[in-house]
Amino acid sequence: MLGRTYGQNCSVARTLELVGERWTFLIIRDALMGVTRFDAFLTRLGVARNVLTDRLNRLVDNGILDRVQYQDRPARHEYRLTGKGRDLSPVIITMMEWGDRYLAGEAGPPLRIEHDGCGGHAVSQLFCEECERPLTVDEIAPRPALADALARGDM
Amino acid sequence: MLGRTYGQNCSVARTLELVGERWTFLIIRDALMGVTRFDAFLTRLGVARNVLTDRLNRLVDNGILDRVQYQDRPARHEYRLTGKGRDLSPVIITMMEWGDRYLAGEAGPPLRIEHDGCGGHAVSQLFCEECERPLTVDEIAPRPALADALARGDM
Repeated sequence: MLGRTYGQNCSVARTLELVGERWTFLIIRDALMGVTRFDAFLTRLGVARNVLTDRLNRLVDNGILDRVQYQDRPARHEYRLTGKGRDLSPVIITMMEWGDRYLAGEAGPPLRIEHDGCGGHAVSQLFCEECERPLTVDEIAPRPALADALARGDM
Repeated sequence: MLGRTYGQNCSVARTLELVGERWTFLIIRDALMGVTRFDAFLTRLGVARNVLTDRLNRLVDNGILDRVQYQDRPARHEYRLTGKGRDLSPVIITMMEWGDRYLAGEAGPPLRIEHDGCGGHAVSQLFCEECERPLTVDEIAPRPALADALARGDM
């Protein structure tokens, strides 16, 4: 569906090729919430069975979910996030934070992400690795990584 | 398209309702890169004209882009991110970081996000507001915000 010119060399476009579909995002969201079984995804999402099967298979094929047998007779499987899958947490969390801010309505945010260790509120934060401080969205700009490497004399 | 049960009260689902479509994500990505004009989006994305018009209109209707006239005769408009739109940067950046890590291939990441002030590498970081330290994806868990507020005696 997407044209050829848009993302030969763009990590956002490549990521969207794998997970850029609403059901897929919602499956990953639920998996991060601890959902593992087909029927649980089915009930929570209200998605058609064949669509769910297709999306789960794609996620397994792309190494984002592992399909693991948890019962013998009859054979039953569950879906567990791989490390690659868990590493999508920040994408889901930043979406959630934006939704909390702009779309949550009067009831307020339904969920909060917590630090397991101390129970504190875990947030996504832009951060400068050089001067080691938090940044706002107005303090950042994209630059071609190659040009940058050339300028530094790395290449 | 999405079932009713999935997200009556989920900020991720609500965010996906607004921006959860690949072209829309890519338009926002390009807008964050400084693209403002219809023809520039058209060329970069290789998207059909009617699809682009539809997606831009939806983004304007939802307050993510402003449509601003920049020329009189003939009247010409450009699309500028609002504050609400710029606040989607972390969503795009976390997708980019995941893509850089898992999908970039041998050429390496094509772009890097920089801190305007010092030119340092700007990254997205999970952070605990309580103990004020960076967190990994394995140190976090979602909790219902309401239950949490009740437990704290806030409500």
